[in-house]
Amino acid sequence: MSITRPDGRQLDQLRTVSFAPGVAPHADGSVLVSFGNTRVICAATIENDVPRWMKYQKVAGGWVTAEYSMLPYSTHDRKARDISRGKLDGRSSEIQRLIGRSLRAVVDLKKLGQRTVWVDCDVLQADGGTRTASITGGCVAMAIALNRLMGEGKLNDFPLKQLVAAISTGVYQGEPVLDLNYPEDRDATVDFNAVMTERGEFVEVQGSGEEAVFTSEEMTSMLDLAKKGTSELFTLQKAAILEADRPDGDALASLAGSFGK
Amino acid sequence: MSITRPDGRQLDQLRTVSFAPGVAPHADGSVLVSFGNTRVICAATIENDVPRWMKYQKVAGGWVTAEYSMLPYSTHDRKARDISRGKLDGRSSEIQRLIGRSLRAVVDLKKLGQRTVWVDCDVLQADGGTRTASITGGCVAMAIALNRLMGEGKLNDFPLKQLVAAISTGVYQGEPVLDLNYPEDRDATVDFNAVMTERGEFVEVQGSGEEAVFTSEEMTSMLDLAKKGTSELFTLQKAAILEADRPDGDALASLAGSFGK
Amino acid sequence: MSITRPDGRQLDQLRTVSFAPGVAPHADGSVLVSFGNTRVICAATIENDVPRWMKYQKVAGGWVTAEYSMLPYSTHDRKARDISRGKLDGRSSEIQRLIGRSLRAVVDLKKLGQRTVWVDCDVLQADGGTRTASITGGCVAMAIALNRLMGEGKLNDFPLKQLVAAISTGVYQGEPVLDLNYPEDRDATVDFNAVMTERGEFVEVQGSGEEAVFTSEEMTSMLDLAKKGTSELFTLQKAAILEADRPDGDALASLAGSFGK
Amino acid sequence: MSITRPDGRQLDQLRTVSFAPGVAPHADGSVLVSFGNTRVICAATIENDVPRWMKYQKVAGGWVTAEYSMLPYSTHDRKARDISRGKLDGRSSEIQRLIGRSLRAVVDLKKLGQRTVWVDCDVLQADGGTRTASITGGCVAMAIALNRLMGEGKLNDFPLKQLVAAISTGVYQGEPVLDLNYPEDRDATVDFNAVMTERGEFVEVQGSGEEAVFTSEEMTSMLDLAKKGTSELFTLQKAAILEADRPDGDALASLAGSFGK
Amino acid sequence: MSITRPDGRQLDQLRTVSFAPGVAPHADGSVLVSFGNTRVICAATIENDVPRWMKYQKVAGGWVTAEYSMLPYSTHDRKARDISRGKLDGRSSEIQRLIGRSLRAVVDLKKLGQRTVWVDCDVLQADGGTRTASITGGCVAMAIALNRLMGEGKLNDFPLKQLVAAISTGVYQGEPVLDLNYPEDRDATVDFNAVMTERGEFVEVQGSGEEAVFTSEEMTSMLDLAKKGTSELFTLQKAAILEADRPDGDALASLAGSFGK
Amino acid sequence: MSITRPDGRQLDQLRTVSFAPGVAPHADGSVLVSFGNTRVICAATIENDVPRWMKYQKVAGGWVTAEYSMLPYSTHDRKARDISRGKLDGRSSEIQRLIGRSLRAVVDLKKLGQRTVWVDCDVLQADGGTRTASITGGCVAMAIALNRLMGEGKLNDFPLKQLVAAISTGVYQGEPVLDLNYPEDRDATVDFNAVMTERGEFVEVQGSGEEAVFTSEEMTSMLDLAKKGTSELFTLQKAAILEADRPDGDALASLAGSFGK
Repeated sequence: MSITRPDGRQLDQLRTVSFAPGVAPHADGSVLVSFGNTRVICAATIENDVPRWMKYQKVAGGWVTAEYSMLPYSTHDRKARDISRGKLDGRSSEIQRLIGRSLRAVVDLKKLGQRTVWVDCDVLQADGGTRTASITGGCVAMAIALNRLMGEGKLNDFPLKQLVAAISTGVYQGEPVLDLNYPEDRDATVDFNAVMTERGEFVEVQGSGEEAVFTSEEMTSMLDLAKKGTSELFTLQKAAILEADRPDGDALASLAGSFGK
Repeated sequence: MSITRPDGRQLDQLRTVSFAPGVAPHADGSVLVSFGNTRVICAATIENDVPRWMKYQKVAGGWVTAEYSMLPYSTHDRKARDISRGKLDGRSSEIQRLIGRSLRAVVDLKKLGQRTVWVDCDVLQADGGTRTASITGGCVAMAIALNRLMGEGKLNDFPLKQLVAAISTGVYQGEPVLDLNYPEDRDATVDFNAVMTERGEFVEVQGSGEEAVFTSEEMTSMLDLAKKGTSELFTLQKAAILEADRPDGDALASLAGSFGK
Repeated sequence: MSITRPDGRQLDQLRTVSFAPGVAPHADGSVLVSFGNTRVICAATIENDVPRWMKYQKVAGGWVTAEYSMLPYSTHDRKARDISRGKLDGRSSEIQRLIGRSLRAVVDLKKLGQRTVWVDCDVLQADGGTRTASITGGCVAMAIALNRLMGEGKLNDFPLKQLVAAISTGVYQGEPVLDLNYPEDRDATVDFNAVMTERGEFVEVQGSGEEAVFTSEEMTSMLDLAKKGTSELFTLQKAAILEADRPDGDALASLAGSFGK
Repeated sequence: MSITRPDGRQLDQLRTVSFAPGVAPHADGSVLVSFGNTRVICAATIENDVPRWMKYQKVAGGWVTAEYSMLPYSTHDRKARDISRGKLDGRSSEIQRLIGRSLRAVVDLKKLGQRTVWVDCDVLQADGGTRTASITGGCVAMAIALNRLMGEGKLNDFPLKQLVAAISTGVYQGEPVLDLNYPEDRDATVDFNAVMTERGEFVEVQGSGEEAVFTSEEMTSMLDLAKKGTSELFTLQKAAILEADRPDGDALASLAGSFGK
Repeated sequence: MSITRPDGRQLDQLRTVSFAPGVAPHADGSVLVSFGNTRVICAATIENDVPRWMKYQKVAGGWVTAEYSMLPYSTHDRKARDISRGKLDGRSSEIQRLIGRSLRAVVDLKKLGQRTVWVDCDVLQADGGTRTASITGGCVAMAIALNRLMGEGKLNDFPLKQLVAAISTGVYQGEPVLDLNYPEDRDATVDFNAVMTERGEFVEVQGSGEEAVFTSEEMTSMLDLAKKGTSELFTLQKAAILEADRPDGDALASLAGSFGK
Repeated sequence: MSITRPDGRQLDQLRTVSFAPGVAPHADGSVLVSFGNTRVICAATIENDVPRWMKYQKVAGGWVTAEYSMLPYSTHDRKARDISRGKLDGRSSEIQRLIGRSLRAVVDLKKLGQRTVWVDCDVLQADGGTRTASITGGCVAMAIALNRLMGEGKLNDFPLKQLVAAISTGVYQGEPVLDLNYPEDRDATVDFNAVMTERGEFVEVQGSGEEAVFTSEEMTSMLDLAKKGTSELFTLQKAAILEADRPDGDALASLAGSFGK
């Protein structure tokens, strides 16, 4: 290993990843996901309706859609709200389309029935990888919400086919590395995100060299890192979904007291 | 006492109020404030600039401004984002103007220097009284941020003159009550909010009887309740500011792990 | 009396208040209200429809809504139109919500039937107190329109329960005063508006100390002034409604000739 | 004469036209213009600045610009405000561009100095011909404002070269007629507006046959009517400007009392 | 003849005008129209629906509407897109309303049935006269589309009553001239556009002297030029419609290869 | 080969690709690019200015930015303009960001000097692959514009480092195929676009399985197809740039006559 990462991690090492379910009690499923210092509130809400275009085109089944936003205080310099600038910025629009596609890839929309799952991802603290944290946490929030719907007897079959997770890789100081934090992301020549399923298939890959390019070999290395990273994420996602599903549910009761300790 | 409140409180009893500092580490000061099940992320960010109109009119000193937003999953039925509806709704606009005026009333803007304090209030869970929780929590976040600025030697004099807090009162089932939760608020005939200072002065009062009216006697009772409520809030605010200011600062380190437990 | 008001009035004295009905002949009821040099065109239009949300929620009865705007030439420095700035400004939005709530408080919406009363308030000349003039004049315009509807036999019961009027008070040079004009308003430390009914009840109170605070005693004095002021306004409102209702209706015929003389 | 006009006028007869100066006292010049039941508030405000593009292109002199709006209660069915619909409608945009061009045609922009004359035209009551009333009244308001500026010694030369006035003509029931009211306008097959100067020159002509066409002969007749109509308007404009310019200025003092009588 | 035109044309001479049908194969009818270096893509699309207001007012028949836009690279200095500036500019809005009215004047809307013809005019290269080229080319595109609809047996009667064409005239260096290119348009004191039918009737005339005026005599000369110009345009329009209508239709097949040669 | 493509192509065969330079003569460089029936107008305009953020952050050199839009008649069902819907749609925003990044990857921004290259891509006819055609054609337009700038002696070094081209691949009926047309794109389970340089490096890869997933093996096949496709595109791009650069420039002269033949 020829380089040293800013936080001392191995090239193929994830940051500490954790999931705190129940952060938004009015949602049907919610989780605060942390990838190191990147923290995103992910909340899934189920609405008994489908988008207008589905009705118009008479498409059967349901829909999954995502909204992504960076809270103004998530960045070191305060970021103006979308509504203050009068429009959703291009980057946010692109990311929320990606989150929506990624989640739909693992849901059987027919089994969902005539419902829309809204997955909201609000970044509380940004330190690189907010889109991959959003997809990974969004899947957990959605799974909790669907579990709840199933528990209430409103679904015949469970619509979630398998889990989906996402991780960033990139070329940093000439080396492919896993799960870049903000200083790495800023200096990386290549940014490569992969969205994968539990079975090791790809849902999305997006590789981009802003003012730079990358070779086939680099791509192969980054894809291998992504496989390793997402396989670790699936284990953590499952534990979080299980925890949220326990009947005692004391997570909720203790929320007010310990937030921020 | 002739009526029973939905959650069994006395007519003049606050809900459990708590402050969890450090919830948004990239802000200069932040707190998660809870008034019962109403939870608001309050974050203060200090910018080394003032609004254009101050420069244009050559007004000396700084400015304090607030933004208020309900996160989509803060309500039982998902609330569409402002940006999706294309404009800030009238209620949010009115609330953020109130928060800004309330905070400015206790700040010596000249002592602030040529700076803007942005106080963002994002409602995580709404159960009545989000505007009063925002003012009360916003004051704590601002105090923490100003403490930090003072600690860094960037201020000669502390610009915060005294604390400000706000509480709702109202007429519920014919009786004046303190700190209404959502079911009480929905059924109240009068909604009366007071913003007060540590010295017992008023900064703002807003009383409103939607499709109803109220008498002078009812107003007097509600003002008395507000005085009692805010005096309790000042004690809690001071403890939170003190806690955030301790040098060990382990609040931050433990955030990722325990959020939501 | 320790201070002198800019226009020589007593502390508890209203400006000259007048109502000129019929200013907007295409409306169902209209009046040009003047509080000294503050002049507002108030026009009520009745539409045989209710807002979408009422239909959706199957709420019976009708609705009253208000729109408030300052004409560009109402202020000394020309004020850009809302449409030029692309959005309704926060202050206007707040005021029109206040006008709407105030008028609804005295209307029996069920007796109104499935109708919407639109009350438009356009400020022709601004010299302090535009919101209180708008409420007071808006009530007159609405009463004229409802009289007309009653006269046409379209209503079984008169939906207006009593009159509503509003007046500003404030603390100017340390003294509570009634009905502030612009120079007083600009220098006042406290701005306190009250909306009251004929029976002496409150519909709304809004007191605000921008970069200042006020005591309970000051509030009591201002409330007393408001009671005195509104009781005088009710007498003037009734005369205006009566005048507009006379069958000869020469007000309309003479409008074109004498406007501006 | 083969047809009868709805209000019994001759084919070449104007409606009663009047000008009431001083309707908006905070403007530099203002007039309420009436063409029969069409009433428009015209107000001219002078700003000591020029549009950004003039500075950027280093164009010497000043600018004249107009804004046109129909007040919601000016029509029989309430017209939603531009800001409620989120944009200026195409018709209003087109009319305000026409007013601006018409007024600029008679102003020596160099003599105006580095100033902008804003001419606001707000329709209080619409009964056909609002654009021609706006141009005709706007010229009067602008003349009053320029007189005032001249009187204050701020101009070396008077920038208004001559008066401009506008009138509508059209083909109604097969006959060319002058100054159409709303019922005539609605049924006319051709709508033809002319903007002319005191010297009998044309500034603008706009003829339009919505779902219809017109011949050269018809155009000639309409142009003759327009010449006759505008020559009468110039006489009335001059009287109004003269009246507004009288030093006693009791127009202003009596405005509050008699509006609407 | 006392003046020399920049491109050596006679005062009453059109630029080279040509029509290339089939430029937008997915439209129902399309043509690239060139008036010298002014080139506009005109495309007509037929939709089996009518505007909401027609349904609401139960108006029988169909509608014709136009949209006009300048492509960013159509001018020497790049023109920002409407969407980047957030609104349609006033000039474009005015022009597209003119195009729509002009085309509707020659269509029997009842015969069109419950359909909307959308005529899009996108300026590829602007060198003066884009609105007149758009009307003239838009009529050809619409005719092709209606021919196609007729050919498919979907219409009983042909709804196009006659052709419509438009041409600009103006006063350039003191002389009335026909079909002004950009340098002439920029220096002209009067801009006069006429929209005429095959039968020599007028649909629209719009004459405007920005910071200038014009006499009756000048208007007469310009109208004569317009008659001459449009009569030549009708001949060219008919040839283009005929060419597009030939069954072999090889225009389409060869498009990809020769565009730009 | 196990499947038959709708248009009979081999799995690894491009559609007929052509470039017609000079389509927008007012741009600094332009080309009509065709990938089969997908046709895009690509125009590069050079502005002697850089974005505000570059000045603010004092970044040296220039910038390349792209705008992408589908003309309303480019699709079988007319697509409403962005300005009519009030906002740029998410897909267009995402595509224009991709085009911009792709072009910047091959430009030495420092050598460009303080200039912005605007690359506009307007889709005239959409039949799949509009984003890849836009990048490929946009590079040609930009190269022509930079050649012109170089020819005018305004650049010391040529800022274009190498060419960039893009091509779509996908999984259609279970098989990886090259350059999908619209029917293939609609039915493909995976959509995979690659942006590559002349040297065989990647600038961007974007693979997406909407409601589907893909394996590593499939990705490898698609990447191989993309390499083959782009290598053919580079040859065609070079010929087009060379052709546009010939001094005789008869492309321009003949444009008006043969467009659409």
